[in-house]
Amino acid sequence: MINVKLTIQYDGTDYCGWQKQKNGRSIQEEIEKAIYRVTGERVDLIGSSRTDGGVHALGQVANFKTESTIPPDRFKYALNSFLPQDISIISSELVPDSFHSRFDAKGKMYRYTIYNRDIRNPIYNRYAYHVPRKLDLIAMEKGAECFLGSHDFKAFMASGSNAKSTVRTITSISLDKSEDLIFLTIEGNGFLYNMVRIIAGTLIEVGFGRIKWQSIPHIIESGDRTSAGHTAPPQGLCLEKVYY
Amino acid sequence: MINVKLTIQYDGTDYCGWQKQKNGRSIQEEIEKAIYRVTGERVDLIGSSRTDGGVHALGQVANFKTESTIPPDRFKYALNSFLPQDISIISSELVPDSFHSRFDAKGKMYRYTIYNRDIRNPIYNRYAYHVPRKLDLIAMEKGAECFLGSHDFKAFMASGSNAKSTVRTITSISLDKSEDLIFLTIEGNGFLYNMVRIIAGTLIEVGFGRIKWQSIPHIIESGDRTSAGHTAPPQGLCLEKVYY
Repeated sequence: MINVKLTIQYDGTDYCGWQKQKNGRSIQEEIEKAIYRVTGERVDLIGSSRTDGGVHALGQVANFKTESTIPPDRFKYALNSFLPQDISIISSELVPDSFHSRFDAKGKMYRYTIYNRDIRNPIYNRYAYHVPRKLDLIAMEKGAECFLGSHDFKAFMASGSNAKSTVRTITSISLDKSEDLIFLTIEGNGFLYNMVRIIAGTLIEVGFGRIKWQSIPHIIESGDRTSAGHTAPPQGLCLEKVYY
Repeated sequence: MINVKLTIQYDGTDYCGWQKQKNGRSIQEEIEKAIYRVTGERVDLIGSSRTDGGVHALGQVANFKTESTIPPDRFKYALNSFLPQDISIISSELVPDSFHSRFDAKGKMYRYTIYNRDIRNPIYNRYAYHVPRKLDLIAMEKGAECFLGSHDFKAFMASGSNAKSTVRTITSISLDKSEDLIFLTIEGNGFLYNMVRIIAGTLIEVGFGRIKWQSIPHIIESGDRTSAGHTAPPQGLCLEKVYY
C-alpha cells in the first residue's frame, strides 16, 4: 500500500464543489472515478480544501492510498486520460504513509479576481466577479492590511459552520491591478468557511465607500457576521497553492 | 433612420460562429434578437468579420440601421440587458449613414493563444490551444517574420473559399511568452478564411521542428495549402481589434 499525493487544477464552473454530494457532480467524485478506471480500486480521496461550487483551483492537493504498482509519477498521465477537460492532475508523487493533505497543510494561498469595468467582459465571466462601479483601490489596500496577523475571524465566517476555533493567521495580503482586473491575493495558515469570499466582499464595499477601511479592525473585533460585507460570488475565487 | 456602430465582446465557445445558420446559435442572431427586443425592429446586423464557431472576440465591430429614438450611446446598456452573459456590447455610437463595418475595415488585429506545457490547464481550455510538446520559440519568431509584408496567401486559406484576390498585407506579427502561454499577435489589412489559424498551425510545426522556418517563404510562394501546417483549433483565436 502506497500513499500518493496529487496536485490538481480545475475549472469549478460546472461542479457542485470539491466534495461528493448526492445531487451534482463533484471534483472529488470525478477523480475517484478516474482512479477506479486506472486501478480497479475504490479509494477515498482526501482533499486539502473543500472548495465550493464554481470555485477554481490551480494548486489543490489531495492524497489516496493504493495497492497499484503504477509508478506514482506516472499516475498523472493515466488519470488525465480518464478525466474531463476541466480537471487536470499536474503532478503525482509518492509521499510517506503518514501524509494527510488536509491535516498536514501548513498554509494556503487564494486569489480572488474582480473585473472592474462598467460593462461585463464575456472572457472573464467564469473567472472573475464583475463589479461595474469604480473601486477605490487605495482605500481597499489600506483595508486589506487590517486583516494581517492573527485574529478571531468569526465575523468573516459563513453562519452554520462549526469550526472549533475561529482564530486564523493571515501572513500576506495584496491587491494588484492589471488594466480592468483587480487581484486580491491572500495567504494564511488556514481559512474559515467562505472567509476569503467575505473578505473580498468586504473590501469591495470599502472600495465603494460603503464601509470605511478604518472600521475593519472593529468589524473583526465585533465577531458579528452581519457587520462585515457580502460574500463575493464563487467564480472569482481560485485556490492557488497549498503549503506543507 | 440612423446608423449605429457596436463594439462587441464574446466567448464563442457555445456558438456556431458570428453568422446566422439554420442549425446552431450564432452571435449575430443573438444580437439581432436583442435589437428586436429593444426596438421592435428586425434589422440586418452587419459584422466586420465572420468569426468561426469557438472563436472569441474582444473587439468585433458591427453596424445596423434603425428608426429607434434611443440615444445611440445608450444602446449598449439596453442591448446588454437582453443578451446572454457570454456576449457583451462595450460601445454603441452614431456613425455616418455610409459606414459599413465590413467594407470600411482598414485592418484587423487577431491574437492566437497557445498553452505550451505537458499537461492541459482547465482554466485555459476555452481560450488557448494546448500544445504539450515543447516549442522552439526562436525558430517560431524567425518563421513569423517571413509573413510580414504583402504576399499571395493562397497556401494559407482554407479550401473551398472563393476570395477574389488572395493577396493580403501583414503589417505586424509578434510572439510573446508569459510563463506557459504563448501569444501570437498579428495585424493586417485583411485575412483570408482560416488564415490566422493556418499561420498559427504552421508556426507550431516550426516550433516542433517539423517545418523549417527557412521554408516558409517557399510555402507562401507555392500557393499550395497542403505544404503549410495544420489549421490550429478555434478556441485559441480572438479578434482583438478592427481598424477604420
